[in-house]
Amino acid sequence: MNGSGTAPAVPRPAYRRLSVAERRAQLLAAALGLFAQRAPEDVSLDDVANAAQVSRPLVYRYFPGGKQQLYEAALRSAADNLEGCFDEAETGPLTLRLARALDRYLAFVDQHDAGFSALLQGGSVVETARTNAIVDEVRRTAAEQILRHLGAPEPGPRLRMMVRTWITAVEAASLIWVDEEKQVPLDELRDWLVDHFVALLVATSATDEESARAAAAALATETADGPVGILARRLAPALSGAAHLL
Amino acid sequence: MNGSGTAPAVPRPAYRRLSVAERRAQLLAAALGLFAQRAPEDVSLDDVANAAQVSRPLVYRYFPGGKQQLYEAALRSAADNLEGCFDEAETGPLTLRLARALDRYLAFVDQHDAGFSALLQGGSVVETARTNAIVDEVRRTAAEQILRHLGAPEPGPRLRMMVRTWITAVEAASLIWVDEEKQVPLDELRDWLVDHFVALLVATSATDEESARAAAAALATETADGPVGILARRLAPALSGAAHLL
Repeated sequence: MNGSGTAPAVPRPAYRRLSVAERRAQLLAAALGLFAQRAPEDVSLDDVANAAQVSRPLVYRYFPGGKQQLYEAALRSAADNLEGCFDEAETGPLTLRLARALDRYLAFVDQHDAGFSALLQGGSVVETARTNAIVDEVRRTAAEQILRHLGAPEPGPRLRMMVRTWITAVEAASLIWVDEEKQVPLDELRDWLVDHFVALLVATSATDEESARAAAAALATETADGPVGILARRLAPALSGAAHLL
Repeated sequence: MNGSGTAPAVPRPAYRRLSVAERRAQLLAAALGLFAQRAPEDVSLDDVANAAQVSRPLVYRYFPGGKQQLYEAALRSAADNLEGCFDEAETGPLTLRLARALDRYLAFVDQHDAGFSALLQGGSVVETARTNAIVDEVRRTAAEQILRHLGAPEPGPRLRMMVRTWITAVEAASLIWVDEEKQVPLDELRDWLVDHFVALLVATSATDEESARAAAAALATETADGPVGILARRLAPALSGAAHLL
């Protein structure tokens, strides 16, 4: 206790001027935080300046293109993050690699829900050919990584379409999940998306030889206690009820 | 042969003034034809006037909002057409109902390829909250019709997500099909999308009771020589190679 009535002098942190790169990163982080939680039309440059605790002219000095430039830079940094999601070592059961990638992707969706929906639902004021190109690049990178895991870096049209379609399904399911207020637990959503991949790959293998080879190689990496084993045992009773089809 | 050197008078079709509704329908048909084959930014009001063989001021008299209004009216008429695609009697194997619906949907995509891609790839100059709402309405109607066929007009979150995700997959596969210059024959694409539906419904039934009931009811309508029977027999050898998972 200090009986004098005046607070003791607290040492201030030494003032340090941020470098250009540090300041830019700080503004970008503030912008990404805002764009993650709100639609772009609900974020103003004043909001970014406030969140970064700087003046509005300073924001303009670093991003003379204003909100559009900040949005594109924030999207670019989010895209770099997302492109890392499907970067997995090519060892172990394929479904476990997919599950880990989906965990990263869905965590991103969870943290950036409003921005993710605004970006992908289209019709946004900041949508341009450039923003669409960035989104397409993320999808393309994810497809290339998955095709590499399937041992088919240069696939035919059917296998490529299968992988690209599944990626769109992941996106759509994520949007629906956010839109329906995250009713389904995130790990259930992840497991279902993995099951969806397995089901789609197996179904495609019925009519495409390349997909059949990829499916056989993938199934060989699976174990009875992994996702495919669990799926197979759960479906066995239902499928035995469809014996009239064989 | 007429030796006089002058062509005989050809009777002209009697001139008939079009009613307002007929003229509007004629302009709309001309616009839809153009928007089907080109991106909206590559269609001018002069093109519409030329295609309908009328003057540009006449087009403006009917559509004072110019190209945007014409585009939205054309999209509205295309949407009405698409919403009819999934309207099928609730009799016979589910996969045959789906196949007929997909035949109609994919024929529409084939005939309106450039416009379909421009509309769904986003970033178009004519994209507005209104055009997005029309596209969403088509998706919602398709989902409602499919859920009715599954005997689940008021589904839980998992079955609803399954159906909505499949509809997005149909859209994505259609876009990829157009983008990759229609390499895959249209009936192969249709059959694969039906197989995709079956696989996804069965996979979802592993972890959702309502989907399991819908899948069991749907499988009971199938026959050994129908799509599910063919799929099951094609997959049987591959699945027997996955016996280590059971």
